[in-house]
Amino acid sequence: MVSDFIDQRGILTVFRRTPPPAGSSPGTLLAPAAAEPTRMYVFDYTTETASEFEVSDLSDVLHLKDTASVTWVDVQGLSDTTAISRLGEMFGLHSLTIADIVNAPARPKVEDHDDYLFIISSGAEIIGPLEIKTEQISIILGKHFVLSIQERSGDNFEPIRNRIRQKQGMIRKAGADHLACALLDAIIDSHYPCLELIGDRLEDLEDDILEHSDKESLRQVYHLRRQLIALRRSIWPQREVLSYLIREENKLLKKPVRAYFRDSYDHCVQIIDVTETFREMCSDLSDVYLSSLSNRMNEIMKVLTVISTIFIPLSFFAGVYGMNFRHMPELELTWTYPLFWILTITCALSMLVLFRRCGWIGSSASGGTPVKNRK
Amino acid sequence: MVSDFIDQRGILTVFRRTPPPAGSSPGTLLAPAAAEPTRMYVFDYTTETASEFEVSDLSDVLHLKDTASVTWVDVQGLSDTTAISRLGEMFGLHSLTIADIVNAPARPKVEDHDDYLFIISSGAEIIGPLEIKTEQISIILGKHFVLSIQERSGDNFEPIRNRIRQKQGMIRKAGADHLACALLDAIIDSHYPCLELIGDRLEDLEDDILEHSDKESLRQVYHLRRQLIALRRSIWPQREVLSYLIREENKLLKKPVRAYFRDSYDHCVQIIDVTETFREMCSDLSDVYLSSLSNRMNEIMKVLTVISTIFIPLSFFAGVYGMNFRHMPELELTWTYPLFWILTITCALSMLVLFRRCGWIGSSASGGTPVKNRK
Amino acid sequence: MVSDFIDQRGILTVFRRTPPPAGSSPGTLLAPAAAEPTRMYVFDYTTETASEFEVSDLSDVLHLKDTASVTWVDVQGLSDTTAISRLGEMFGLHSLTIADIVNAPARPKVEDHDDYLFIISSGAEIIGPLEIKTEQISIILGKHFVLSIQERSGDNFEPIRNRIRQKQGMIRKAGADHLACALLDAIIDSHYPCLELIGDRLEDLEDDILEHSDKESLRQVYHLRRQLIALRRSIWPQREVLSYLIREENKLLKKPVRAYFRDSYDHCVQIIDVTETFREMCSDLSDVYLSSLSNRMNEIMKVLTVISTIFIPLSFFAGVYGMNFRHMPELELTWTYPLFWILTITCALSMLVLFRRCGWIGSSASGGTPVKNRK
Amino acid sequence: MVSDFIDQRGILTVFRRTPPPAGSSPGTLLAPAAAEPTRMYVFDYTTETASEFEVSDLSDVLHLKDTASVTWVDVQGLSDTTAISRLGEMFGLHSLTIADIVNAPARPKVEDHDDYLFIISSGAEIIGPLEIKTEQISIILGKHFVLSIQERSGDNFEPIRNRIRQKQGMIRKAGADHLACALLDAIIDSHYPCLELIGDRLEDLEDDILEHSDKESLRQVYHLRRQLIALRRSIWPQREVLSYLIREENKLLKKPVRAYFRDSYDHCVQIIDVTETFREMCSDLSDVYLSSLSNRMNEIMKVLTVISTIFIPLSFFAGVYGMNFRHMPELELTWTYPLFWILTITCALSMLVLFRRCGWIGSSASGGTPVKNRK
Amino acid sequence: MVSDFIDQRGILTVFRRTPPPAGSSPGTLLAPAAAEPTRMYVFDYTTETASEFEVSDLSDVLHLKDTASVTWVDVQGLSDTTAISRLGEMFGLHSLTIADIVNAPARPKVEDHDDYLFIISSGAEIIGPLEIKTEQISIILGKHFVLSIQERSGDNFEPIRNRIRQKQGMIRKAGADHLACALLDAIIDSHYPCLELIGDRLEDLEDDILEHSDKESLRQVYHLRRQLIALRRSIWPQREVLSYLIREENKLLKKPVRAYFRDSYDHCVQIIDVTETFREMCSDLSDVYLSSLSNRMNEIMKVLTVISTIFIPLSFFAGVYGMNFRHMPELELTWTYPLFWILTITCALSMLVLFRRCGWIGSSASGGTPVKNRK
Repeated sequence: MVSDFIDQRGILTVFRRTPPPAGSSPGTLLAPAAAEPTRMYVFDYTTETASEFEVSDLSDVLHLKDTASVTWVDVQGLSDTTAISRLGEMFGLHSLTIADIVNAPARPKVEDHDDYLFIISSGAEIIGPLEIKTEQISIILGKHFVLSIQERSGDNFEPIRNRIRQKQGMIRKAGADHLACALLDAIIDSHYPCLELIGDRLEDLEDDILEHSDKESLRQVYHLRRQLIALRRSIWPQREVLSYLIREENKLLKKPVRAYFRDSYDHCVQIIDVTETFREMCSDLSDVYLSSLSNRMNEIMKVLTVISTIFIPLSFFAGVYGMNFRHMPELELTWTYPLFWILTITCALSMLVLFRRCGWIGSSASGGTPVKNRK
Repeated sequence: MVSDFIDQRGILTVFRRTPPPAGSSPGTLLAPAAAEPTRMYVFDYTTETASEFEVSDLSDVLHLKDTASVTWVDVQGLSDTTAISRLGEMFGLHSLTIADIVNAPARPKVEDHDDYLFIISSGAEIIGPLEIKTEQISIILGKHFVLSIQERSGDNFEPIRNRIRQKQGMIRKAGADHLACALLDAIIDSHYPCLELIGDRLEDLEDDILEHSDKESLRQVYHLRRQLIALRRSIWPQREVLSYLIREENKLLKKPVRAYFRDSYDHCVQIIDVTETFREMCSDLSDVYLSSLSNRMNEIMKVLTVISTIFIPLSFFAGVYGMNFRHMPELELTWTYPLFWILTITCALSMLVLFRRCGWIGSSASGGTPVKNRK
Repeated sequence: MVSDFIDQRGILTVFRRTPPPAGSSPGTLLAPAAAEPTRMYVFDYTTETASEFEVSDLSDVLHLKDTASVTWVDVQGLSDTTAISRLGEMFGLHSLTIADIVNAPARPKVEDHDDYLFIISSGAEIIGPLEIKTEQISIILGKHFVLSIQERSGDNFEPIRNRIRQKQGMIRKAGADHLACALLDAIIDSHYPCLELIGDRLEDLEDDILEHSDKESLRQVYHLRRQLIALRRSIWPQREVLSYLIREENKLLKKPVRAYFRDSYDHCVQIIDVTETFREMCSDLSDVYLSSLSNRMNEIMKVLTVISTIFIPLSFFAGVYGMNFRHMPELELTWTYPLFWILTITCALSMLVLFRRCGWIGSSASGGTPVKNRK
Repeated sequence: MVSDFIDQRGILTVFRRTPPPAGSSPGTLLAPAAAEPTRMYVFDYTTETASEFEVSDLSDVLHLKDTASVTWVDVQGLSDTTAISRLGEMFGLHSLTIADIVNAPARPKVEDHDDYLFIISSGAEIIGPLEIKTEQISIILGKHFVLSIQERSGDNFEPIRNRIRQKQGMIRKAGADHLACALLDAIIDSHYPCLELIGDRLEDLEDDILEHSDKESLRQVYHLRRQLIALRRSIWPQREVLSYLIREENKLLKKPVRAYFRDSYDHCVQIIDVTETFREMCSDLSDVYLSSLSNRMNEIMKVLTVISTIFIPLSFFAGVYGMNFRHMPELELTWTYPLFWILTITCALSMLVLFRRCGWIGSSASGGTPVKNRK
Repeated sequence: MVSDFIDQRGILTVFRRTPPPAGSSPGTLLAPAAAEPTRMYVFDYTTETASEFEVSDLSDVLHLKDTASVTWVDVQGLSDTTAISRLGEMFGLHSLTIADIVNAPARPKVEDHDDYLFIISSGAEIIGPLEIKTEQISIILGKHFVLSIQERSGDNFEPIRNRIRQKQGMIRKAGADHLACALLDAIIDSHYPCLELIGDRLEDLEDDILEHSDKESLRQVYHLRRQLIALRRSIWPQREVLSYLIREENKLLKKPVRAYFRDSYDHCVQIIDVTETFREMCSDLSDVYLSSLSNRMNEIMKVLTVISTIFIPLSFFAGVYGMNFRHMPELELTWTYPLFWILTITCALSMLVLFRRCGWIGSSASGGTPVKNRK
């Protein structure tokens, strides 16, 4: 009965986090249950030069850390907690920072640790016909390096890689802060296609519900609601993150970069607006669904009532003349049987006329027209 | 089944923006899909002189920029992004400002770039019998110039042009800031006719629903709700914009102009108030709709129950005397058939009286009157 | 179908304001469509002397303005915009102030123009059996004068006039600020009778709905809701006005007067409280209405089901023995017909007993009692 | 139809206040319509001595005012406004303070008049099986005296009197501020029994509704809601009062007393929490009620449908063989009548089996069990 | 009718607190009605040494208080108020602090008493298949000691004891503040398993409701709602507590400990997020339940209407030819009886076809498919 393409683990995705065993030491590393294998990609560039390789041995990265070139380490998948932990230590991260990176999903936030800025962000991805998944992406911005740690492998950052490779825009000329800003912008913008998908579906559903009101539509409305709840939990705290990045002075963020954060902030607020609008539409749809059901019930009951009201009294009269009383003078006369039919048909027709006047028959057509004509 | 004059793309209008490809460089220009052709009109005036022409070559505008006269460039339609971009550069706009102008719709906001003040505003327009569209209008206020960029061609600003042409009010005597203020005021006031349209329709709908409760009315209520959601998204952020313009000191805005911004602010708050009131009324209407359906169902069921309760038992008795038992002494007597009719009619009448006492028959009339008379 | 005493222009009263033509110069005077004729009354008093006259020529007022006596000009009706405008100019009002006074209804607010304090307030008046209207009342407090401009003629201020005439309280001893405070207090208190009216009606409606649930009651609930929405829009912003008057230092308001503003503030908050409480009750009532309808539907369906369940099977058996099969041995025996009746009656009675046990018959009586007795 | 123990003036109790005649001078004394007769009790104590008497002549109190002993005047009943007014003047109260005391109910608040602290508080009392009433209690704290003015006579303060009489705790050792604090604490704690009563009733109602869903239960839910609205209006503003007393420095309140105010504050917040929780439960209950009604309707309709679906077709077949066509060969055969019965019974039984499979018969039992067993 | 494993005292658990007798002296000790017997365990450790024993005589603890080693006294059960009170006095606690510890449940809060920090926290525990209970846990942090007082005996703190015993992490190296922080972290994390349980149940319930909609499911939804209300009341105020601990400077909390409080704070916010999400889901579920009931009612009514609409008219025709009029020429003809059957069957079949076209028969299958195929 449940359509195939809807993930039935909807609720659990809201609460995917592996909860820490109560009383365990804060900072314990707990990769999510179904973590993807870890891969690391390094990009090292200056205005003139750029090199790019996948990391097999972490020591290859070490010497890049302190050069003046911008070093971007992109980690995909959280399963190899040891490697991530070692990488973190190499770049001087606090143990709680490393725990927050690995124990996804944490709530989006920003923390200023003098030497580096730690941002937890959250992207959204379409993973099935009506299935959206949010993904924790941590960004660490140091003086000359950026670490980005994604829960899942993905190509969100491919356009940025291309911009670096092809020297597009000012990304090669600017520093690590500009790269971090570009990454964050890409993460925020990853919500747009999800909203578009949901918007399209909502539109279809409205027509479905006004015309069919089947259970499947209702199920889909609630499925969309849940997707929107998840998106909302992902996007709301990021507004605070971006607002913090715009507002707070920080030696790692140069002033011109802030204008770009403001741009991401505007997008973020727009996404929140649309999400809230869609949530309202979902609520409206479930109201429409209920009204639509009541409407249909009225239609059904009208049919039953019309049929019953016409035929039950007539059946009674037929029954009366089926009685076996000896002295029923009407039965003996020749013209009473045709009279019976004449009265019966007259009676039925006049009730039909009455019902039509009350709008019980053909009401859906006649009820709608005056509204249009009134204007 | 869907009435013709309702735009079925209701949901998409909430989310018209062409989303930027994820990871694209911030500041990329993306005109909306169905952008109108771009036309530019220039007004250049001092207290004494005023000239007005349509721009064919952008260099015609260049020399006006630095004169002491007030230069107003009104751009309509966003399709020619190159021209808009060049215009922006001529007047020294930041690349993100130009992107915000072109990538409509952005959220209304105000940004202070030392040399100019950048305002994104949003007007509303009636484009069909029950169809309202919001339109992004960007205003750039410089020392001696005002740029206004409208998404669509329109005559919102015609009264202001007339005031300039005819030296009405103090507009010719005042500076560029007064012009910007007048434009913003016109944009805010463009919401009034939309609200009036919706108010009129809501009023009609209430009567429709209390008397007919057809599906079409419900559809229209939800259509109005969506229009109100769109209006609300357009008007709310403008309150912040106006509040910022009143509050913040700025060398481009002279003090007397602020009093006029306060006037626009009051209008804006009033529009918000009315929008919220209308939203509440929409909710009420869909409640009324549901109650009305239930009410009607009760009426239908009463008819069915009255008919069934009267005739089903009588049919049983008719059936009894249609039985073929050999020894049914009642059947042989002469007076039993008239007696049958007498009992039947007595029984039916007494049930009718009973139903009338319970208020099941004629209740809609009798139920309403005592309330009126009680006062 | 609509009861006579309910004003069907309910929605429009929420939005009575004549919207300014888009793009018109701010400060344009637009009296409301159905403005009442303008009349002006002057009161001029000191502790010892008091004179009172209706203004026929505005120049009569001019010389009073600068005397040390308190001059109170009470304007009723907004149709004569020229006179009001001239009066405003005589007392040195800003052109936007005059526009706000005339273009009623504006939102209640307070503005401090060094020379005078401009307060827009809003009173409420019962104008029909269930009809409440709010009215804009502007108060201008100068050093030695108070202007009060009412949208409609009315006797809200009559008790204050009497207090001046009869030297009651300290009003003659105190200055213009005390008079303004008394006026504002009278305006706030004008909401009490309206709330009392609504409260009484709500109480009646609750019983009506629990017993009748007719459409008229529902209509009245929504009518009351709309009145409450209007009252709320009138009273909420006045809290801010009063809070401003208590809080802000101002040379026109002496300190002892502030204690009296605090008293008005307390009343205002109490009115808001009661309004919100009544709004909640309205919502409750429409829920009760729906539940009540469902309840009634259940009662109706029980009757239908009881009747059908008893007689439909019996009719079947009567039908069986009305069949014309040649070999139906039961029909031939003498005692089968009485047996048929005995079985029929037994069967009907036992079903009645069953229904009574299930609580389907007489349930409204038996369902209610145990609750009472349980305590 | 309305159960006896529910006060039908529920709504008016929310709005008991006698509204001041519009325009009357602020400070006019208006005792509530049904004010109780005024009685005054004096307690005068130091660490060593304590005297206690009922006041017959106000001059008896005058000399106690300035002694170093703590003087507590407890006034019960507001009808004798002259006496209360004189008492107030004796203790140097502002005329608006006296008006606030007498014109009950005012909103709970605290006012600092240099010489004294004026607190309006509100207690709750159970006055009938499900009837709660709130009562204004004003407390005036001076240097060496405390006045407490209760709307109704009551024994809320009896335990405090006993603590004074029996030298329990530190009340005799501490000053007037400690007494005021103890009184306020007793007033706040008077809400607990009311909440307990409501909590017990809510619990009973839930079972009632899930099993009976009668109108009486619904009425009681809404009655409880209204009691909770009244309690909420009484308790919310007291949080602000207590928060003010904890926060603001004041020469009349010694520092150790503040710790006790914090305790009352915690109780107050807890009462608010429980009130809000109960309000949510009430809303839930009215939802449960509606669902329960729909559920029952389904049960009723199932019975009707099962009976009709089985017997209506059978009746048709009985009717067919009751027809009087001359050539109906089936009627002539001996074995057709028994066959008719066999087919009829088979048909009825197989439909019963079908209905049981669909869960229409016996569903209430079978529907519930799998849920329990699944765990 | 009520399933066994649901605690019917749901409402009372929200309001378990024994209310103080009105007017009793603040600081009176009132252990909860069903308090567990009191047991005390002591842990005394430095980096090198650690000792652990159960307290039989309170004087054993006294000498540990002032040593430089960290002393942790864990009290379980509140019944022995005298012992707890004496312990409190030994460690110099204020009498109101002791009252707050004993008179559980109080609202979570933090109080800074120069010598010690007093934290009331609240843990959650699964005590039955769907039963969650919150428990007050008070923590007192002194210079070298930590007192933890739990309402019930439990093993929340066992992992911490093990970390101390086995020198895991930095707990043995750090001071009393680190221990307090670890305890608080364990308390917060105790909410995770409860949420997981509720999440799992919600997921099951959704399928149950969409397929069965029985009363038991509704009861469980409301049971879960109540559990969530309780959880929410427990967790919300703890956010403020943690936010205070992070924000406020305090000589008892060293700076590095604050980073760990921030971690607990993040968990706390996440738990709040999930709780709110689950509450929304519960609301959705009760909406789904109602829609599901309406849907089912439609199905039932369709069956009834289909059967009635087919057989009631046919029965009428059968009745007509069962009449005993003498002159009914149709009855005499040989071919009329077969014709009757032909017409009857044709008529019934064509109505079946009509009903199938309208989607009344087999609609649940056909209504669902087009939605899936449309994509």
